[in-house]
Amino acid sequence: MAFGWIDEQAELRRRAGLVRTLRPRPADSPLLDLASNDYLGLAHHPEVTEGAARAARTWGGGATGSRLVTGTTELHGELERELADFCGFEAALVFSSGYAANLAAVTALGPHGSLIVSDAGNHASLIDGCRLARGTTQVVAHAEPDAVRKALQTHEGPAVAVSDTVFSVDGDAAPLAGLAEACREYGAGVVVDDAHGLGVLGDGGRGAPHAAGLAGADDVVVTVTLSKSLGSQGGAVLGPARVIDHLVNAARTFIFDTGLAPAAAGAALSALRLLRREPERAARARAVAGELHARLTAAGHQAVRPDAAVVSVRAPSPEGAVRWAADCRAAGLAVGCFRPPSVPDGISRLRLTARADLTDGQIERAVRIIGETRP
Amino acid sequence: MAFGWIDEQAELRRRAGLVRTLRPRPADSPLLDLASNDYLGLAHHPEVTEGAARAARTWGGGATGSRLVTGTTELHGELERELADFCGFEAALVFSSGYAANLAAVTALGPHGSLIVSDAGNHASLIDGCRLARGTTQVVAHAEPDAVRKALQTHEGPAVAVSDTVFSVDGDAAPLAGLAEACREYGAGVVVDDAHGLGVLGDGGRGAPHAAGLAGADDVVVTVTLSKSLGSQGGAVLGPARVIDHLVNAARTFIFDTGLAPAAAGAALSALRLLRREPERAARARAVAGELHARLTAAGHQAVRPDAAVVSVRAPSPEGAVRWAADCRAAGLAVGCFRPPSVPDGISRLRLTARADLTDGQIERAVRIIGETRP
Repeated sequence: MAFGWIDEQAELRRRAGLVRTLRPRPADSPLLDLASNDYLGLAHHPEVTEGAARAARTWGGGATGSRLVTGTTELHGELERELADFCGFEAALVFSSGYAANLAAVTALGPHGSLIVSDAGNHASLIDGCRLARGTTQVVAHAEPDAVRKALQTHEGPAVAVSDTVFSVDGDAAPLAGLAEACREYGAGVVVDDAHGLGVLGDGGRGAPHAAGLAGADDVVVTVTLSKSLGSQGGAVLGPARVIDHLVNAARTFIFDTGLAPAAAGAALSALRLLRREPERAARARAVAGELHARLTAAGHQAVRPDAAVVSVRAPSPEGAVRWAADCRAAGLAVGCFRPPSVPDGISRLRLTARADLTDGQIERAVRIIGETRP
Repeated sequence: MAFGWIDEQAELRRRAGLVRTLRPRPADSPLLDLASNDYLGLAHHPEVTEGAARAARTWGGGATGSRLVTGTTELHGELERELADFCGFEAALVFSSGYAANLAAVTALGPHGSLIVSDAGNHASLIDGCRLARGTTQVVAHAEPDAVRKALQTHEGPAVAVSDTVFSVDGDAAPLAGLAEACREYGAGVVVDDAHGLGVLGDGGRGAPHAAGLAGADDVVVTVTLSKSLGSQGGAVLGPARVIDHLVNAARTFIFDTGLAPAAAGAALSALRLLRREPERAARARAVAGELHARLTAAGHQAVRPDAAVVSVRAPSPEGAVRWAADCRAAGLAVGCFRPPSVPDGISRLRLTARADLTDGQIERAVRIIGETRP
């Protein structure tokens, strides 16, 4: 029977304790949220939700077509200009998701005959970008500029190094300055995904590339999401205008996708303006992460020192992680639970998000529940 | 210099007359729109835009995380249930775009060792799905069940045939019943993209698979977009519950992407309910397409007989197509312009969308402008 093989895979997952199920949440969830990527607590901010509502009324429920046909509104242009300006780049291009932005950047900048040097800890969307690209991918050791150097040494022709700026699983930061230095020695471009850096790192949340002095460089391209610190949906590529023009002409996930919905563009633009006005939100997210880490390690947990707003806590096993997260949930705390195959190294973790709007009392409560439910 | 090769490509594009640029539109564009995919004219319907606005206020500007973490709201569940029910399938899964839905369906249903039989006219997102999938892809002649049969003959193990139901460039329909028959002879699954069928074909717009008697079959999986007839953004996969469960567990563009923004889910749900209440919108879109085609051919244009709501008119050359579309625009009419590399056969076209809300006067005006601007 067609699709019969699916049942066998489902049975294997069940036996391994790796079944994933969806858990729809109500609008008024009583859970303390340390699981989302809403780093600045803006997804429910009235300015952001009103930005979405206003855009839908003015521009419609959808963009109605590809960005190259009818899907580019003046709102998209406004968002792109302000995003580029904020992060310090010449131009920006907005996509329907960060996933689509990463597929676009890697495929369009890794053409046939080129070398793509990819960090072993990269996000699934960068990995899929490498697989879709016509260039040859070489995966190198995590966060090691010398490994990038070694890979670039033997290649003639166009090359890029591709990396997350903040890795989503452990929350550790890439050595961006070192990575750029290695690339420059060989004339290679730098493509980095600042999904977890924008709004959290750099001056007023301008992101990790800005903090590393790479903003606006002619050999640096950055992708970001609008769905994390900016509380909306979508992604963007930032870089030199000529690179952005190239993407408009060559990136399949730009050309053949419907434009980002006006409501999402409106929400992201409102969030961006709010962040400009209240730059302290970025520092607060980092401070909350530091506080969470300090209290968790003091309580004897194995937590990775956070470089941004993600705090990762080791769990004893996939089953242990699932039970731990479920017990946290039963006690009123939502935490992320990462386990195979979502983790590159096979180590299961609780993943905590340090939202800028968490109070000291909420941080204390979260740490207490995590301790009490430890498997 | 890094990215230096981009300038050479830009120069080649310029010389070939293939440069694409973005043209941001104002909210109150005076153009008559025959370019968008807003087939039912719902993108600006007050119920749809209010659905978006209400959802943003209730559920936030974004979904805040992956669907498997915090990104599934009860609103997503509601949309999935109503969409599955409307189209006649057991279950549905909503994605941030139709592109993501297609990548998910093809990669998750085309595992290592499987055969993916792909129609030569398929949309870029299906092609990219094939390239990302671990299975082996065989591209077969456009809309020929016997070609699918021949490809399946020699393969042992899981297999799927992948096709658009309505091809986006020429607007012609796939022979769905014949395709399913061919697949059933060999126990292969059917994966079809109904992006241009939903809301237009089938009883009350239930889509091409419903019209072909394939809805709810245990060997049929359908992808749709929320960004065309439903006037919003996003995509969905419809099929047997076990296939949907499999996607939740295995589809990377589901697992590693932020959930669809509540505003987009809300807009799509409002549009779906509106379509249920006003099923005549689907028939009207088809009637407008027929009328456009009849008038264009009567005026001597080479137009393909539309199977849904897309009417394709041949242009003499890429440059001719661009000039024709620009002249239409100058005369107040927005039309799509497809040219290489967006067209599989290298033939440039004007692409017209038969919106259900076009008046007879608007149809007449459109046909007149197309005739007067003919290169």
